Amino acid sequence: MIAGMGTDFDLIIRGGQLVSAAGPIAGDIALRDGRIAALGDVGTAAARVVEAEGKLILPGGVDAHCHIEQRSGMGLMNADTFETATRSAAMGGTTSVISFAAQTKGQRLGDAVADYATRAARGAAIDHAFHVMVTDTGVERFAEDLAHLIEAGHRSVKVFTTYDIRLEDAEILAVMDVMRPLGGLLCVHAENHAMIARATAALLADGQTRPEHHAASHPRMAEIEAVARMIRFAELTGQPAMLFHLSTPEAADQVRGARRRGIPVWSETCPHYLLMTKEVLRREGLEGAKWMCSPPQRGESDCAGLWEAIWREDIQVISSDHAPYRFDESGKLRAGPEARFDEIANGLPGLETRLPLLFDAIVSNGRGSVADFVRLTATAPARIYGLAGKGDLRPGMDADLVVWDPERSVTYGADDLHDNVGYNPWEGRQITGWPERVFLRGQEIVRDGGFYGLPGAGQLIPRPDPGVTAR
Amino acid sequence: MIAGMGTDFDLIIRGGQLVSAAGPIAGDIALRDGRIAALGDVGTAAARVVEAEGKLILPGGVDAHCHIEQRSGMGLMNADTFETATRSAAMGGTTSVISFAAQTKGQRLGDAVADYATRAARGAAIDHAFHVMVTDTGVERFAEDLAHLIEAGHRSVKVFTTYDIRLEDAEILAVMDVMRPLGGLLCVHAENHAMIARATAALLADGQTRPEHHAASHPRMAEIEAVARMIRFAELTGQPAMLFHLSTPEAADQVRGARRRGIPVWSETCPHYLLMTKEVLRREGLEGAKWMCSPPQRGESDCAGLWEAIWREDIQVISSDHAPYRFDESGKLRAGPEARFDEIANGLPGLETRLPLLFDAIVSNGRGSVADFVRLTATAPARIYGLAGKGDLRPGMDADLVVWDPERSVTYGADDLHDNVGYNPWEGRQITGWPERVFLRGQEIVRDGGFYGLPGAGQLIPRPDPGVTAR
Amino acid sequence: MIAGMGTDFDLIIRGGQLVSAAGPIAGDIALRDGRIAALGDVGTAAARVVEAEGKLILPGGVDAHCHIEQRSGMGLMNADTFETATRSAAMGGTTSVISFAAQTKGQRLGDAVADYATRAARGAAIDHAFHVMVTDTGVERFAEDLAHLIEAGHRSVKVFTTYDIRLEDAEILAVMDVMRPLGGLLCVHAENHAMIARATAALLADGQTRPEHHAASHPRMAEIEAVARMIRFAELTGQPAMLFHLSTPEAADQVRGARRRGIPVWSETCPHYLLMTKEVLRREGLEGAKWMCSPPQRGESDCAGLWEAIWREDIQVISSDHAPYRFDESGKLRAGPEARFDEIANGLPGLETRLPLLFDAIVSNGRGSVADFVRLTATAPARIYGLAGKGDLRPGMDADLVVWDPERSVTYGADDLHDNVGYNPWEGRQITGWPERVFLRGQEIVRDGGFYGLPGAGQLIPRPDPGVTAR
Amino acid sequence: MIAGMGTDFDLIIRGGQLVSAAGPIAGDIALRDGRIAALGDVGTAAARVVEAEGKLILPGGVDAHCHIEQRSGMGLMNADTFETATRSAAMGGTTSVISFAAQTKGQRLGDAVADYATRAARGAAIDHAFHVMVTDTGVERFAEDLAHLIEAGHRSVKVFTTYDIRLEDAEILAVMDVMRPLGGLLCVHAENHAMIARATAALLADGQTRPEHHAASHPRMAEIEAVARMIRFAELTGQPAMLFHLSTPEAADQVRGARRRGIPVWSETCPHYLLMTKEVLRREGLEGAKWMCSPPQRGESDCAGLWEAIWREDIQVISSDHAPYRFDESGKLRAGPEARFDEIANGLPGLETRLPLLFDAIVSNGRGSVADFVRLTATAPARIYGLAGKGDLRPGMDADLVVWDPERSVTYGADDLHDNVGYNPWEGRQITGWPERVFLRGQEIVRDGGFYGLPGAGQLIPRPDPGVTAR
Repeated sequence: MIAGMGTDFDLIIRGGQLVSAAGPIAGDIALRDGRIAALGDVGTAAARVVEAEGKLILPGGVDAHCHIEQRSGMGLMNADTFETATRSAAMGGTTSVISFAAQTKGQRLGDAVADYATRAARGAAIDHAFHVMVTDTGVERFAEDLAHLIEAGHRSVKVFTTYDIRLEDAEILAVMDVMRPLGGLLCVHAENHAMIARATAALLADGQTRPEHHAASHPRMAEIEAVARMIRFAELTGQPAMLFHLSTPEAADQVRGARRRGIPVWSETCPHYLLMTKEVLRREGLEGAKWMCSPPQRGESDCAGLWEAIWREDIQVISSDHAPYRFDESGKLRAGPEARFDEIANGLPGLETRLPLLFDAIVSNGRGSVADFVRLTATAPARIYGLAGKGDLRPGMDADLVVWDPERSVTYGADDLHDNVGYNPWEGRQITGWPERVFLRGQEIVRDGGFYGLPGAGQLIPRPDPGVTAR
Repeated sequence: MIAGMGTDFDLIIRGGQLVSAAGPIAGDIALRDGRIAALGDVGTAAARVVEAEGKLILPGGVDAHCHIEQRSGMGLMNADTFETATRSAAMGGTTSVISFAAQTKGQRLGDAVADYATRAARGAAIDHAFHVMVTDTGVERFAEDLAHLIEAGHRSVKVFTTYDIRLEDAEILAVMDVMRPLGGLLCVHAENHAMIARATAALLADGQTRPEHHAASHPRMAEIEAVARMIRFAELTGQPAMLFHLSTPEAADQVRGARRRGIPVWSETCPHYLLMTKEVLRREGLEGAKWMCSPPQRGESDCAGLWEAIWREDIQVISSDHAPYRFDESGKLRAGPEARFDEIANGLPGLETRLPLLFDAIVSNGRGSVADFVRLTATAPARIYGLAGKGDLRPGMDADLVVWDPERSVTYGADDLHDNVGYNPWEGRQITGWPERVFLRGQEIVRDGGFYGLPGAGQLIPRPDPGVTAR
Repeated sequence: MIAGMGTDFDLIIRGGQLVSAAGPIAGDIALRDGRIAALGDVGTAAARVVEAEGKLILPGGVDAHCHIEQRSGMGLMNADTFETATRSAAMGGTTSVISFAAQTKGQRLGDAVADYATRAARGAAIDHAFHVMVTDTGVERFAEDLAHLIEAGHRSVKVFTTYDIRLEDAEILAVMDVMRPLGGLLCVHAENHAMIARATAALLADGQTRPEHHAASHPRMAEIEAVARMIRFAELTGQPAMLFHLSTPEAADQVRGARRRGIPVWSETCPHYLLMTKEVLRREGLEGAKWMCSPPQRGESDCAGLWEAIWREDIQVISSDHAPYRFDESGKLRAGPEARFDEIANGLPGLETRLPLLFDAIVSNGRGSVADFVRLTATAPARIYGLAGKGDLRPGMDADLVVWDPERSVTYGADDLHDNVGYNPWEGRQITGWPERVFLRGQEIVRDGGFYGLPGAGQLIPRPDPGVTAR
Repeated sequence: MIAGMGTDFDLIIRGGQLVSAAGPIAGDIALRDGRIAALGDVGTAAARVVEAEGKLILPGGVDAHCHIEQRSGMGLMNADTFETATRSAAMGGTTSVISFAAQTKGQRLGDAVADYATRAARGAAIDHAFHVMVTDTGVERFAEDLAHLIEAGHRSVKVFTTYDIRLEDAEILAVMDVMRPLGGLLCVHAENHAMIARATAALLADGQTRPEHHAASHPRMAEIEAVARMIRFAELTGQPAMLFHLSTPEAADQVRGARRRGIPVWSETCPHYLLMTKEVLRREGLEGAKWMCSPPQRGESDCAGLWEAIWREDIQVISSDHAPYRFDESGKLRAGPEARFDEIANGLPGLETRLPLLFDAIVSNGRGSVADFVRLTATAPARIYGLAGKGDLRPGMDADLVVWDPERSVTYGADDLHDNVGYNPWEGRQITGWPERVFLRGQEIVRDGGFYGLPGAGQLIPRPDPGVTAR
């Protein structure tokens, strides 16, 4: 190769089928300096050539909703550190995560973000960004700090309408008023707190305290009402909003109606709302606790309704909502073997299983195309959250790639995840399609079941744009 | 360059900004054998290098609705031949057209298609496909011929619900029944004939016979009713349908509602519904006749409503509906200087102005992005109509490209179009953004105002897929 | 009684519970000169006093849709004459009917009305009005005749969108244009003809020719489409319309949507859509033919949906659509014992059973109140069709009354109807609630199972008002 | 007249036109023992005969929303006592009122009701009932007391979602849970408190402190959101709800949508939302304060939209929301001549003007019929709130009557109301139609501008029914 001819690539992956959200791309892909340098007929002049005959080459997954190294509302520390969580994510084909920088009561927002960013910089093996999780608007210089963080590129904020860390309507409006002129996205866990408290009290009073009763403790109307209310807040203030983890088609209907009226709202769901029902909570003893999350899984027709909402693009993103608690006294069972459902931490692991489950559900089961899979799990979240360089196969983008074997069938076992949770909620499920090799900015971090990433090699993802400001 | 290294491209366009419907692409584009061979860092090893500094490089336009070398319902031959029409299209940045193979009464469908295809093969300077226009379902072996044509790749069919060439409900259902199992798209000019006849009779009886009265002769309800009816036909039969040239937001609302319910329907509008109002019909004498088309232009709020429908993606495609009649006794004025509105041919030229008008309206006026412009005018029509190799910038696609100058301002004059119509309905309009160079399968056919295409060099576009069968 | 004191009533009915659509009325009812003279404490001074302890006293029923002494679309004469039909109606508690004055092809409208009115004047034992049924708009002086009839008080017109007697869109619009300035109500049998023809042809081609296949031959979409289209005609022209005999909740949804937008439309259903399903068509041999009508009965969930539409007042009227054909070679079986479903006359008797069935369904089964029953079967049709003096218990109204025994249970037998049809489609059904005595303008015409009415005693009901002109 | 014949009525009103919500009634009306004894030809045998030639005889008005002898949220006592308020109501044709028994913080509910009922028993000159206004759910035996009151016939409860007396979501759900099994109607002042606080703070911070800025301090979205939320609460709990004083068509749309889905909700508006706009708040100095109320008046198109909602029956009741404050330092101007809008008491008088304004707006201005007027102002509120014997002209109902002069034109002056407020917000408005004589249970209490009622003669209206439990 003649130097300076511009063809001395670092790496070429050849012989595979490139697929972006726009469809298949003919030819191969060449990388240089951690970026996609060329697509198509890229020649063979590279320091390294990887053969991918019979494989798909896709953008690395973007998981826009996960809890990493975070204290829960119940005071529990997540089972996962940035090191374990990002290792797990990478093993599942994900190269970018957005987790939470969670403010504790009384803490200044900048301190919260600094705390999480420092830990992530040390531990994360893949690229990452943060949703600033606001739980206390009464702290000193709150609005100033929030504005500063957004301008510094932390362009998404998370609030709750339920739990002890919920914000009241007035506080949420105040957060929106700070955000509106700066260009950021407000993410909301939207469930009506009073409805949940009412249902929970009624169940406990009636002695219905098992994990399976968790489902009834979060009435679907709680989600529907709060989603509708948050949409009106977005309409009133003009502040764009993302409705997190929808579990009901009715909530998705609210989003659809709003988007039709031009209100800047988006929504998300998770594999455990699409592929599981509340039946999982009924398992013997406290076993059901392994599947407990909020909002809870619903019924079969809800799964079907959420898939419809996905194909109508009322739901644009599928995230994991990875919330890791061990199934022992350090986590789920902290309140002991007689725990009531309201004493059990909510959440289940999902970083590693998200992409294989969804490839299987979408592509292998014929619900949609490979391009749809890429759009829902990588391209759309990267675009909506403004993650520069992520989620697509275009020259100039980061060389975050997955070499995917569309034929490989795997049955999940109990111990095969690489997080620190200790159980796999999808144990026994057989899926077809598997992430064989994973590249992060051109570096191979996963190969044939082995993890070669480095804690601390993950970078904070730049978010230079003011973020989504319209549909 | 070392032979056999795979880098000996035919052409590299360098220094410009590549933009597809997915967004900007870093680097350059390399072509070989009429296709896009590589994107990104493609080196410089090519037989020819074109410099495009400061320019956009976009997929060539796809105009999915135009009348070329066709007899109108009034027995007029269009002013344009395939040669003049495709020259005009190319000069405006369009590299693919779908025009009509119009059955005459009593004619077998295959004969109609053969007639048009033969003429196109001889005259067309750009690539092309046909909508099979059905006007007589009573001819010998109708269903058999239609099925054969669809299977042969003529995968879209056009019917009218109004004019003398309209089909009755039963005939339209029969066409749909033939199409359904084969995978094709039914395109409909949907206006209620009885409502138009009623309004026309009332106007003529009242002496309201001028071009401006044409607008009232096509009540908006005529469009709304027929669009709603055709949607129900699609729902009943499962046959996908495209609603042509919507002029009212209410019709787009019908499409939206249907798509929400999962019915496979799409819709189209045209620049003259987005950027003109019926005021143009009021000009002195018969001048207004130059702008007469069906459905007619509507009011300001309709223009706004159609733009909204575009951004909500209720309308997915913007076509020209190029329907060329000279403003003389060979065309518009065939019935003489005292012609009543119902004696004047409907239609206006648009092949050449479509892209510049829409780039100006969308990009230069800030309604949307360059990627939106590409999607609406090239990527979406190519995908919906199954035009293989067209409408996107991915390696493997046809090398149909436009080098676009986003800064150049032009004021349209009366004589600056390259069709055979003789007037420019947009005369006097100033626009910003101009197609500077156009490549068809790697051949430069337009450069700096000169046309270098060849009649007969255009090819019939393959449509191998069974076509759209779901949203 | 002292003469001239105004208390010398002709008749007092005492001791019963008066109920109008507004609710219960305390006290008794006094009649004079065929009208309600007083309500409440009316004393006892009357030529005759009827005791009604334990009974309800209700307005006589108004059946706004029935076919009497009419030729069908298949050329059959109905089994009933005005004499037999009105006797049957009266025995079931109905004191007013609106039947059809059906134009034959080529017949002037006035001749049609004169023909029916003459026969009714001779034969009808209860009061009556006519819907002018238009089947041929091409006859001499059509518009003039229609206008004249409306002004003369025949303020409702019936058209079909299906059958051989259907009108085309343009003809229906023309009828509406005549009616609009005069104030009348257009009633429509709205089903899409092409959809029915398509389904029928497919069934016959497939050898599916039994009565049960009649259901599939009238796709629900045929009703939905045509109802939607007629609503748009009402919106375009401003002409009020009544959608006859809805069989699907989706059609009722169209009516609701239209009414919400202020379009003057109403709708009707019948007992056989509310209380029967298409299962009745499956009976052995040709038995199912007894229940064949158009549109056909649908499924369980449709029955439920229609009841909901009634309580939401999207459907305002419940009529019988009495269409009497004997189950022999003079009627249903004219085409012989091997008849295909399309050769069998559509329609079933219902004049006599309508009120007992609905009282049982509404009141005895707890779906609604006595006042609701009165509203749906008497007050609403009288108001909507402008039947002067009918349908309510207010002083000044005609003394059309039913003494109703709410406790009496009856099981319908095969031979217990008083029409000339020869079978009872409701045979075997047990109902609670029975019309014991019936008064027409103060004359007792039914008492304890005996009929005392007189052919020719029925009068043409005046309809002085220009009819409904708004919701 | 022969004694004992049952015709010796106490009073006959003769020669007028009786009209109920069902329409006109022929003949006259006879009263005995405070009730309607007979309608129609009632003879002349009565202790007293009143001639009413040329007049309408209507049910007395029912005002279901007024504040009497009540402390406001700002600690002000209303200007009116039961004596002055009911005198004013009667002079305007109203014979029944529902005012509020307002709980103070810490007060047991029974004590609140006893307090108001005692004062009403002493002072009220017309019949009355109470909405139990809950402001503190934390008091001893709250649920028990509430249940007891409902069972005792106080079948409607009022809560606020804004003001200092607002209840939180959880408290409102708790109130609904108590009510649901008992059968009562929850009335809600529904505005989102946080939105109002946000807007108010922004206005004050910006120095926008005048009465006219009150309008912007209550964003229309505040009403829309809270109405939507309360509807969902009704859906969740099954508890029927009345949405008070709608000021926006969008809120009425929410009610319509809910009623379509079968949710038991109703709504109300007031003359000052139908006939005034926020322009009234702009008058010079603090004059605008006279018209300040919450929610505020809106724009012209809102008035039109509310009328449409009335004719669609999305809004079923028109009340006064009489909230009397004098325009001096004892009332509106308590905070002095420099008061900011948020320091000025909200509310305006309306008991006396409601019926004349609405008769003029509905009947004299041709928007509807006399029957519509009666329905909206008397029949519907009596039925919805279960006021036994009120709101209709049927024998057995209370003889609450108004002799109405439909021709009399009056121009309101500043001093012509009979309440204790001291100004007439409708000063200068000319209306046609006037309540000439008023009868309460057969006693004449108003005649030709003179008031003949007696404080303490009004009775608590029995509400025996469990109240509305379905639409």
